[in-house]
Amino acid sequence: MTQTPSFLDAIKWNEQGLLAAIAQDARSNEILMMAWMNRQSLERTVATQQAVYWSRSRQQLWHKGEQSGHVQRVKSILLDCDGDTLLLKVIQEGGIACHTGRANCFFRTLQGVEWEETLHVLKSPDEIYNQ
Amino acid sequence: MTQTPSFLDAIKWNEQGLLAAIAQDARSNEILMMAWMNRQSLERTVATQQAVYWSRSRQQLWHKGEQSGHVQRVKSILLDCDGDTLLLKVIQEGGIACHTGRANCFFRTLQGVEWEETLHVLKSPDEIYNQ
Repeated sequence: MTQTPSFLDAIKWNEQGLLAAIAQDARSNEILMMAWMNRQSLERTVATQQAVYWSRSRQQLWHKGEQSGHVQRVKSILLDCDGDTLLLKVIQEGGIACHTGRANCFFRTLQGVEWEETLHVLKSPDEIYNQ
Repeated sequence: MTQTPSFLDAIKWNEQGLLAAIAQDARSNEILMMAWMNRQSLERTVATQQAVYWSRSRQQLWHKGEQSGHVQRVKSILLDCDGDTLLLKVIQEGGIACHTGRANCFFRTLQGVEWEETLHVLKSPDEIYNQ
């Protein structure tokens, strides 16, 4: 029987057994994305020091960058006061965190009552995923 | 009949009608907290340019800082690729975002397999809330 690492006890998983995880660029402090982790994905993240999320749409572990090469090397992991949100400070390989080919996922900015695209595509998804 | 602002249509509310909202300090880029918004709280946030969340524990609108004075003045609002996470760039009044009296909510850092407190309390919650 393996012992559960104690750091997992501090976490308040939601009703789906998940925890929100924000990825922030460790150098620029830019917010890259928000995704979800289950227990196994967090254990994997800590063990490998690369971000491993839980894909809610595919219902499976999602090693970020496994296809694209755009892995996130984890520099530090922080937990919030409620124990239900993680902050990962990462080095984003390739400088592209978003599956749309942008540097980060927050590419729409509210201007008045309209969203405007405020980040351009660095590399087309076709190029990223069909190499 | 009032017309729904179109920017709300781009949002994918979860099964509880909520959307994750990350607050980031607009000047330092420090991540302050993560909370939730429903439709009404987002409308209120846009209208007042101060962060208004939805308190899941109290099941009511939560005008951040209404008691403490630590309001968040919203400088910009960004939406991610999936339409289910907002990023608010804010000016944090009082320099304290966390109800524990810390600058932000992410005050525990994983060191090996233990959480260590890496942010100190700037003002005790007693002082903040019982003025």
